[in-house]
Amino acid sequence: MTDTNREWLLAERPTGEPDLDCFELRETDVPVPAPGELLVRTRFLSVDPYMRGRMRDAESYAEPWAVGDPLKGGIVGEVIESEHDAYDPGDLVTGEGRWADYATLDADDVAPVDPTVADPEAYLGVLGMPGRTAYFGLLEVGEPKPGDTVVVSGAAGAVGSVVGQIAKRAGCRVVGFAGSDEKTTWLTDELGFDAAINYEATDDYRDALDEAAPDGVDVYFDNVGGPITDAVFTELNLDARVAVCGQIAHYNEEETPTGPRKLPGLIPVRARVQGLLVSDFATRFGEAGERLGRWVASGDLEHRETVVEGLERAPDAFLGLFAGDNVGKQVVRVAAADEE
Amino acid sequence: MTDTNREWLLAERPTGEPDLDCFELRETDVPVPAPGELLVRTRFLSVDPYMRGRMRDAESYAEPWAVGDPLKGGIVGEVIESEHDAYDPGDLVTGEGRWADYATLDADDVAPVDPTVADPEAYLGVLGMPGRTAYFGLLEVGEPKPGDTVVVSGAAGAVGSVVGQIAKRAGCRVVGFAGSDEKTTWLTDELGFDAAINYEATDDYRDALDEAAPDGVDVYFDNVGGPITDAVFTELNLDARVAVCGQIAHYNEEETPTGPRKLPGLIPVRARVQGLLVSDFATRFGEAGERLGRWVASGDLEHRETVVEGLERAPDAFLGLFAGDNVGKQVVRVAAADEE
Repeated sequence: MTDTNREWLLAERPTGEPDLDCFELRETDVPVPAPGELLVRTRFLSVDPYMRGRMRDAESYAEPWAVGDPLKGGIVGEVIESEHDAYDPGDLVTGEGRWADYATLDADDVAPVDPTVADPEAYLGVLGMPGRTAYFGLLEVGEPKPGDTVVVSGAAGAVGSVVGQIAKRAGCRVVGFAGSDEKTTWLTDELGFDAAINYEATDDYRDALDEAAPDGVDVYFDNVGGPITDAVFTELNLDARVAVCGQIAHYNEEETPTGPRKLPGLIPVRARVQGLLVSDFATRFGEAGERLGRWVASGDLEHRETVVEGLERAPDAFLGLFAGDNVGKQVVRVAAADEE
Repeated sequence: MTDTNREWLLAERPTGEPDLDCFELRETDVPVPAPGELLVRTRFLSVDPYMRGRMRDAESYAEPWAVGDPLKGGIVGEVIESEHDAYDPGDLVTGEGRWADYATLDADDVAPVDPTVADPEAYLGVLGMPGRTAYFGLLEVGEPKPGDTVVVSGAAGAVGSVVGQIAKRAGCRVVGFAGSDEKTTWLTDELGFDAAINYEATDDYRDALDEAAPDGVDVYFDNVGGPITDAVFTELNLDARVAVCGQIAHYNEEETPTGPRKLPGLIPVRARVQGLLVSDFATRFGEAGERLGRWVASGDLEHRETVVEGLERAPDAFLGLFAGDNVGKQVVRVAAADEE
């Protein structure tokens, strides 16, 4: 183990689209675990769209970062030193940590990673927060019924790709929007989506939807917002449910974005539109983890991670989310299994 | 009883704001009731904002009227001839009938009017469709809890005025938006609203809301849409519920209206927004009628009707809805009690 540690700070708040100037890599000492804590060597860290909100100076569900604050998110790492009985050096764990080579984590706040179920990075995606978001968001907010048509935006992302597969298990027709032919092919040929629309290849989303979802839309799981969402709202069926999970199309906008008003259209179909945050389901994370783990281990639930190599490239990985660079979950490999 | 009858037809579809050219009054014979039907002399007829939608050539929950079709809506009338055992001449009933002096109604589709509970015209408002809409919309979609702040737009209208009073019964702080000092005074001084905002007297609805609803908004019952609704959406609390009952600000717009996007704001607070149509609660209309009737009879539930005199003025009454002419329920008196 080296004595030096590196960690990313918020150097400045972004205005509009973030760039590399917003990030600063600082050298620090390797932290020392207090009683009850673990010192962890980061293997993978997660970059997620919601982090854009924490870079803004505005109260929200996740506290805003101050300029100069270390950036944090989901990590998977190997225990180097343990000050807690439940973990030993060499164990793999996942929790919330800094974008850093090393992190100290409260042992009560981490969960074990079982590499026999899936590669460790999957614990930041299908077996982590995105997978749980898909699970609860679809089942509890979307409430899919067999025969329903479920439409997912950001369908090839970490959340959307899981949403679509769970909707298939629930007996639904599943249609995804994604931003490249590579992604739509993955959705239909490997994940079992009934149809996928490459939104970069068409301007007429309504027309594409008419073809892909000829019976209208019963459940819309929205990760994106913008014109895709505008189109889907025109196709909602009676008693449709919309789970508003993310609105990545708008995260970099400084002014309140405008668009077609949606409330008048809700009345004739009595649609329900609901904001979704996975933390509301925290008491049931065990249930989700158990089921998702079983489906992944059996090969019934496909997943993919897009890996950017090196802690120094973490900001690039984050920025790539807004360009749609990722297929499945975007992670950063901070250290390989044999590194210390 | 005279031999002539008059009825209003849709003369042409409105473009944008309707005007008198859209309506035509035709003389016809007094209809003859078939077995099972009642011949009714119309006392009052109801004009309602939703009728604007039926004048449009677009499928919706209520079938569009064709040009040349008779206009229809809620009526209260006196039975003149009965071809059904349950009703006798002289009985007062309410049902769906033409905008006409006389109507034949299927006896199975009408309900008795009890003038000892309230004046007959109240059966088109607080004891009719608007009252039921308020009852189910607030309680089943808004789900108010004691201590909640409930905001109502169109608060001095037929639905809004009942919503606010039921919300007070449910232990809520109630704030209404209405369009004149006369209306806001009625809300606060007679109906017991905690605060009322005259939206014609201010441009800064957010600021007015900050003062009237300092703890934010838990339930928003929306009859209006537009800038009032935009302001309320910025003040939604965690787990807020929005019942979208009407959007009268947009009914006369020919193009899809645009406005601030609301979905991004739903995520942090996990708000639920739901379109509302009272017919979904048809199996429980008895429950609503019984309670609303009891509250009205006891004087606990205030109501007001704005009466336009004469069948010939029914279109004026309808058009007045969009100008905010009505306090409480807008009705048209077609015949006084002693007329036949």
